[in-house]
Amino acid sequence: MLPKHYTRIVLAERPKTDFTPTTFLRETVAFDLKPGPGEVLVRVDWISLDPAMRGWAGWPMEVVTYIPPVEIGAVMRSFGLGAVVEVGEGCELRTGDIVCGLTGLAEYAVMKEGERLQKIMAPESNPPGVQLLDFLGPLGIAGGFTAYFGLLDVAQIKAGETLVVSGAAGQVGSLVCQIGKLYGAKVIGIAGTDEKCRWLSEELKIDAALNYKSPSFREDFKDAVGYLDVFFDNVGGEILNFAITRLKQGARIALCGAISTYNGLETKGITSYMNLVMQRAKIEGFVVSDYSRRYPEALRDLSKWISEGRIIRRYHIIEGLENAPEALPLLFTGGNTGKLLVTIFLRPRRCYANS
Amino acid sequence: MLPKHYTRIVLAERPKTDFTPTTFLRETVAFDLKPGPGEVLVRVDWISLDPAMRGWAGWPMEVVTYIPPVEIGAVMRSFGLGAVVEVGEGCELRTGDIVCGLTGLAEYAVMKEGERLQKIMAPESNPPGVQLLDFLGPLGIAGGFTAYFGLLDVAQIKAGETLVVSGAAGQVGSLVCQIGKLYGAKVIGIAGTDEKCRWLSEELKIDAALNYKSPSFREDFKDAVGYLDVFFDNVGGEILNFAITRLKQGARIALCGAISTYNGLETKGITSYMNLVMQRAKIEGFVVSDYSRRYPEALRDLSKWISEGRIIRRYHIIEGLENAPEALPLLFTGGNTGKLLVTIFLRPRRCYANS
Repeated sequence: MLPKHYTRIVLAERPKTDFTPTTFLRETVAFDLKPGPGEVLVRVDWISLDPAMRGWAGWPMEVVTYIPPVEIGAVMRSFGLGAVVEVGEGCELRTGDIVCGLTGLAEYAVMKEGERLQKIMAPESNPPGVQLLDFLGPLGIAGGFTAYFGLLDVAQIKAGETLVVSGAAGQVGSLVCQIGKLYGAKVIGIAGTDEKCRWLSEELKIDAALNYKSPSFREDFKDAVGYLDVFFDNVGGEILNFAITRLKQGARIALCGAISTYNGLETKGITSYMNLVMQRAKIEGFVVSDYSRRYPEALRDLSKWISEGRIIRRYHIIEGLENAPEALPLLFTGGNTGKLLVTIFLRPRRCYANS
Repeated sequence: MLPKHYTRIVLAERPKTDFTPTTFLRETVAFDLKPGPGEVLVRVDWISLDPAMRGWAGWPMEVVTYIPPVEIGAVMRSFGLGAVVEVGEGCELRTGDIVCGLTGLAEYAVMKEGERLQKIMAPESNPPGVQLLDFLGPLGIAGGFTAYFGLLDVAQIKAGETLVVSGAAGQVGSLVCQIGKLYGAKVIGIAGTDEKCRWLSEELKIDAALNYKSPSFREDFKDAVGYLDVFFDNVGGEILNFAITRLKQGARIALCGAISTYNGLETKGITSYMNLVMQRAKIEGFVVSDYSRRYPEALRDLSKWISEGRIIRRYHIIEGLENAPEALPLLFTGGNTGKLLVTIFLRPRRCYANS
C-alpha cells in the first residue's frame, strides 16, 4: 500500500559557505511516483549523509566536477538503501528486493535499473556478522569501497610502511586505518577530539591517534610518525600542508577529499609542495566510481573481514528524514561519531553496529 | 702549467629571500689543490647556472632536501665542464679528458672519479652538430636529461595529448616543449616576455606561447589550451594553481621545480587541489639523478635529435667567473634568454649555439 503523500528534501539555494537552515526545504507532496520501463520504485529506509553532498549542492569555488550539481528545487542527492515496492516494465528486480544507490533525500524514489542501483543480498545470504546497514558503510561505495581502492590501488600501501590518515574517525578514515593494519602498516590516525582519538587507539588499535586541535600537534606528529610513506587525506588544508613536509622518498598521498575546503573559506593553500620534488613524491586524486568493475572484489574482502571481526564500525543514527538537513553540518564540524545515517521507516536495532 | 693562485666564489651568507650582492664572496687564493687517490684536478672552463643553486644555498622555507646545503665559506655548488689537468693514483681518467660534474664556482676543482663525474667524448667523436657546450645544456643532467625523464617517464606524454610547459623559454622548459612536439603532443608554452613567446612560437614552432604577465593570460590559456593532459611545471605558485583548474581526467603534473617559491616570499599557496580528486589527476615531483642508470639512453636520443636539427637551443653566456654572482639572479627575474652559462678560460665561439 503506497501512501497518499510522501516527504522529500529539496535544495532550496546554493550554500555560499556552510550548509545553513535555509539551504534545504522539506516538501510533503501528493504521491505521483510511478516507475516507467526499466525503472523501479524504491521505499527508502536508510539514507547515508556524506561530505560529498556539500559539493553536490554546488561548489563555492571553481572546480571541474564529475557530476553536475543538484538543481535548485530538485531532491537533494544522497546514497540510500531501501526496498523495491513497484517494478516497471522489463525490469529484472522484483518487489521486495533490497537495493542501494543514489536515492536522494526522499521517502520514495523512482530509480533506473542498472549498474548504479546495486542489489543487496538478502540478510540471510550474507556472511555472519554482516548487517544490511553495512551496505551504506563498510560495504558501501562511499565508505568501504572508497577506503579499499584508495589505500590499496591509489596509495599502494605495503607491509612495514608508515600510513597517516586524516579524518581518521570518519567513515572512510576509520576503514583506511583498519585496512592499513590488516596489511601490516604502522598506522597513525588524525582526528579532532580526544574521544575520537581514544576510540581509534583503544577500539581500532592503531599505533597512534593524534588530535589536530592540540597545541602540540606538530610535535606529536613528528614523534609518532617520523616520516611517512602514505598519507590518506580526507581533509586538505593545513594538515595536508604539514604532512607534505614529512614525506619519505617515494611517498604517496591519496587525495580522497578535502573537507576543510568545502565551504570555500580555506584560502591559505598548500605552500610546501617543493617537498614533492625533493622526495620524489606524489599527490593523486581519485574517484571511487572509476573502480566500479572491481566492486565485487572489495565487497568480498570487506565482508570477510567484517565476518571475522577484523573490521569495527560504528553508526551515528539520526531518526527521521526531517532531521537530515540539520544533521548534515555535523560532517563538517566533526560532530558525528561514526558513519552518519538517517533512518526513515525503520528504527535502529542494537545489532546494527558492533561498537 | 698550473697557476700560483686561483679564484673561487664562496657562499658568504644564506640568502633570506633572493640572492643579493652579499650572498657570495670572491676569493683569490694560493693554489693548493692536489688530487688524492681516485681524484682528479679539473680546470673548469664552463659553468652552468641553474635555479637549483638557490636551494643549494639554503632554502628559506622548511624542506626535506636530497642534498645538504653548501656550508658557509665553502665554494658554491654548481655544474661545470672542463679538462682534467692532473690525475691522482688509481684513476682511469687521463690528463686532457673532458669531464662534466658538480665542479662548483671555481677555476679549478679536485673531484672524485666515479658516477658523478661524467666523461665527455672528444668533440670529434660526437654526432655532427653536437658541441661540447651541449653537455651543460640539452645533453646535461640539469638540462636535457631532466626534460627527457620528466616528460617521458614521470608525465608519460603521449601523441595527441595537450602539454603545457611553464618556464618554457628556460633551459628545461624549451627542451620539454621540443620533445613534446617530437612525440606528437599539442604544446603550449608559458613565458614572461613577448620576446620569449615569439622565440617559442617562431623558432621552436610550438602550438602557442602565452605571456603570463599579460592581463588576458587566463583567457588566453583557456583559448589556447582548453583542458590539459600534462603540465610540466618549473615555476609553481599562481600558474600551477590555475593550471590545476584546467585538467582533463587522468592528467599528470610533473613537478620539476617551483622557481616562483625559491625566495620564500610566495605564501598564497595552492588552493585548487580538489580538482585533483575530481579529475583523478596527480602531481608528482622528481629528481633527475634517480634516472642516472638511464642517462645513456637520454644522451643517445638527445644527441640524435640535435644532430638531425630537431632540437634548437640557445645560450646566454656570461664572461668571467667574477660575473657569476650577479648573473645568477637573472634566473629568477626571467632576465636570461636561453641557458645561462659562465665561461672562464675559454671565450665563446659563434658555433656554440644554433639560435
